[in-house]
Amino acid sequence: MHRTKVRVAEDALDANETIALANREDFDRASVRVVNLMSAPGAGKTSLLEQALADLDGIRAGVLEGDVQGSVDADRIAALHVPVAQLNTDPGFGGECHLDANMVRSAIPSLPLDDIDLLVIENVGNLVCPAEFRVGEDARVMVASVAEGEDKPLKYPLMFRTCELVLINKVDLLPHLDFDLDRFLYNLDAVNPDVARMELSARTGEGVDQWRSWLAGLPNRVAAAAR
Amino acid sequence: MHRTKVRVAEDALDANETIALANREDFDRASVRVVNLMSAPGAGKTSLLEQALADLDGIRAGVLEGDVQGSVDADRIAALHVPVAQLNTDPGFGGECHLDANMVRSAIPSLPLDDIDLLVIENVGNLVCPAEFRVGEDARVMVASVAEGEDKPLKYPLMFRTCELVLINKVDLLPHLDFDLDRFLYNLDAVNPDVARMELSARTGEGVDQWRSWLAGLPNRVAAAAR
Repeated sequence: MHRTKVRVAEDALDANETIALANREDFDRASVRVVNLMSAPGAGKTSLLEQALADLDGIRAGVLEGDVQGSVDADRIAALHVPVAQLNTDPGFGGECHLDANMVRSAIPSLPLDDIDLLVIENVGNLVCPAEFRVGEDARVMVASVAEGEDKPLKYPLMFRTCELVLINKVDLLPHLDFDLDRFLYNLDAVNPDVARMELSARTGEGVDQWRSWLAGLPNRVAAAAR
Repeated sequence: MHRTKVRVAEDALDANETIALANREDFDRASVRVVNLMSAPGAGKTSLLEQALADLDGIRAGVLEGDVQGSVDADRIAALHVPVAQLNTDPGFGGECHLDANMVRSAIPSLPLDDIDLLVIENVGNLVCPAEFRVGEDARVMVASVAEGEDKPLKYPLMFRTCELVLINKVDLLPHLDFDLDRFLYNLDAVNPDVARMELSARTGEGVDQWRSWLAGLPNRVAAAAR
């Protein structure tokens, strides 16, 4: 019975990969670079986006907000006058705990691809399934809040292993936590030793410049890699 | 295609319900009361369990630890000399982001049901899918960390709606956060106005007595309700 379950999961992932490639072709055609932004609930994805998008140095950004229900985050992004589309997994997609390529595909017509250079897809807050589904992105970024504890890379290794950048957020709380940053970095190295990492705080703005530069530089880095 | 997907999900949930009832019968036969403990990653489930189980006032407790991989939390519980079994969703179950009734059923033979009064099932850290799968529990408890923000009841309403108790954890961090507790409680009331809630901190021990009493009193409350 378990074998069948795994087989079904593999078939679903193959189908997802095909649709992710179609998304990628649409993004490439419009010269839009795409970030898949993931984290546990409440790690600070939206706050870090707000901080970065407020001043992106000439890069025109858009956002696709993934949530089970509601549009709390999309409303926050829209207040920055950044084009944003809401994708809810609840009504059409059975309340899924992640975005997949097909859901993102269904949202492409609502995105102004010809008017943006960068699309950030804010995934559903979850450290498990979002890591399993590519959606056509150029880069995967995850946010880990120091309030979550040092053991998270060991407990959710696929998420930490499949991303290109780990944003270690809420470092302003470090004096008030028993969080051991060295231990976290040791655990991160155990699952993904080469991943880029930044320590920052959306609340105080500490380290946000570095994250903003990383985002703004993505289109050039992707273009350089393609040459 | 979406309709088929939802239909498949409903069939899976029907099958889950049947197995959950079988689990419940096994627990009832051994007079073991069962708590399904859920939260986002890093909200403090294990720390709150450590605090409560260290001195449970004559109640004999056991723990079933659900994780995608590893046994970090089970090792912490075992150090308290509390019987604990580890259930990993990765090897046999395709890396699922939640426990379901069948997974719990597979772990029952490793649990010393005849020697305990209370079983706490610590679910995989996730605010979406664990809420959809009953596992045979008497009560569902969720932990919400104040570091996660006030909007979580609105973004993950099923989780907040299907539990009997919300543990609002890490209140020692309140002076260092922009978290508005009144706003959180307002949002909680919007999705589950009658749910019990406790404010506490596993780190300082504040409010933990109340949580420990709730756990220790569960067998009597269930017995009283059955009379």
